[in-house]
Amino acid sequence: MSLTIWCNSALSASAEHLLATGLADHRLIFAEQRSASVLVAGKGDAGLEKADVVFGQPDAGECLRLKRIKWVAVTSAGYGRYETPEFLETFRERGSVFTTSSTVFAEPCAQHVLAMMLALGRQLLASHAEQLGGKQWKFFEHRAASVLLNGQTVLLLGYGTIARRLTELLAPFGVKLYAVRRKTHSERGVHIIAEDRVTAVLAEADHIVNLLPDNEASRNYVNARRLGACKPGARFYNIGRGTTVDEGALVQALESGRLGAAYLDVFAEEPLPPSSRLWTTPNCFITPHTAGGRSDQDLALVKHFLANLDAFMRGGDGMLDRVV
Amino acid sequence: MSLTIWCNSALSASAEHLLATGLADHRLIFAEQRSASVLVAGKGDAGLEKADVVFGQPDAGECLRLKRIKWVAVTSAGYGRYETPEFLETFRERGSVFTTSSTVFAEPCAQHVLAMMLALGRQLLASHAEQLGGKQWKFFEHRAASVLLNGQTVLLLGYGTIARRLTELLAPFGVKLYAVRRKTHSERGVHIIAEDRVTAVLAEADHIVNLLPDNEASRNYVNARRLGACKPGARFYNIGRGTTVDEGALVQALESGRLGAAYLDVFAEEPLPPSSRLWTTPNCFITPHTAGGRSDQDLALVKHFLANLDAFMRGGDGMLDRVV
Repeated sequence: MSLTIWCNSALSASAEHLLATGLADHRLIFAEQRSASVLVAGKGDAGLEKADVVFGQPDAGECLRLKRIKWVAVTSAGYGRYETPEFLETFRERGSVFTTSSTVFAEPCAQHVLAMMLALGRQLLASHAEQLGGKQWKFFEHRAASVLLNGQTVLLLGYGTIARRLTELLAPFGVKLYAVRRKTHSERGVHIIAEDRVTAVLAEADHIVNLLPDNEASRNYVNARRLGACKPGARFYNIGRGTTVDEGALVQALESGRLGAAYLDVFAEEPLPPSSRLWTTPNCFITPHTAGGRSDQDLALVKHFLANLDAFMRGGDGMLDRVV
Repeated sequence: MSLTIWCNSALSASAEHLLATGLADHRLIFAEQRSASVLVAGKGDAGLEKADVVFGQPDAGECLRLKRIKWVAVTSAGYGRYETPEFLETFRERGSVFTTSSTVFAEPCAQHVLAMMLALGRQLLASHAEQLGGKQWKFFEHRAASVLLNGQTVLLLGYGTIARRLTELLAPFGVKLYAVRRKTHSERGVHIIAEDRVTAVLAEADHIVNLLPDNEASRNYVNARRLGACKPGARFYNIGRGTTVDEGALVQALESGRLGAAYLDVFAEEPLPPSSRLWTTPNCFITPHTAGGRSDQDLALVKHFLANLDAFMRGGDGMLDRVV
């Protein structure tokens, strides 16, 4: 069976070549407007009407309207735009498939979190600021402030693909690892806890890693009450979604010293507006939503899609990152 | 047998208490001048004449002169000041013991190297500079420049305690790991190579980690010739000793683009003089000899010393970090 595959991603030349050649007998059509960002929502597009399979960041409403679509493969790990009861229910009822590209981004995200943890532990950002500033040599200060990860307590908010990989990367350090998740069945190398134990574990955690996606349940999850339950001096990281944090409460927790540091990659509004106090709050460090970045992103996305297409053509068994 | 133990380290209060109580029947005397830095060479001191055991950073000449000394325990990992044929030979002939504190610093040093590698890989320093500068949001640039460690080639110059620990920390990333060492017997997880293969492996390595101590053989080991053999764009890290690098040649390798970046913790002259071009050369990043830093350093040094004292009193078997 030959399918029409619609794509609105602006891919690198080598990735586009791989996609075109990898599709064999299927037909590839591109949207008029394409974006290189996996975070930008696509718009309606005439070509969508003919699509059997959608690859990229399509408009969620259009995907609902067009019953011809058998599979939507989004190029992001998060899928907040599609995670409405209506969307997922409709896809289930129709027998359509919905996949993310979660696996593509798990590796860079896990490395990003460990990079953030180690950069704070080793005082790399302060040393860099001093290099750029007055060429200061703060030998004693930074040695005394350098903290080993060994024996520290780490709490992960959320436990999916990224968290599993992070668990592997943290294994050699001998940290005490907790994760909160709705389904509390056990996982190797980590203590999975339910929501009712979060406050108790927050009081012990040296590091709190927020991996939560954006949805109704997660919005403002990290609020003043939970920040107030943290161990004084704890370090907070966010590579989930910005909407899961009350940013005003976070600034206050940093200013009061309740949190020792925050290292943030995602924000309620992106790009983070210059007016945001997060830019200038002491001990608040920022990366511009780059946790998922990898120089080979487009190639990795196309490889992931082609492998899933193979499985889709064989009936769907073994598709990666399948939500519906 | 009760020994007199001389110490010229300025220890934290808790570490000094642990030392005093842990020595039991032995006698503890402190030098008139004590330093909190494990890098500062001690001077002659009247108390040394009575010492059976020396703990700290004693003057090497005095240790040679005073035949009463049965064991010198230095508080650093490096021991360049004592590594002369005369010093080590004399200690061997006398039946005296010489130990370092290598194990205490291996963990922070290994974490520091991984922190440097990941910080460059995830563009953390550039993002921090942009936060401090104009609050720039370089989403596309940094995502495209983010490089995963997976599958990369790493060459370690030197293979001792730090390298073994770094090998463990790197294990989950799936890097291809080489190390050059005089004794080429095999080690788990790493390809040990002899000097005659270094040029070939330099041409393949994405990351070159210099762990070399200071001695006659290592001085200026990283010179213009070896830098010229590197893979274009390679990243160079130094947490060994500054004297092992020709700093002028390093600046040139960065300016010409032969090296993609250098992340340096040690320098020929420390503190690094403000006049050094390393401070301002593009893609050259600096930490102020903090790789070995750990907030619990003094306690860890005293625990290490007391454990070694135990082994010393039982005849010397099982002493950690023993050189002679």
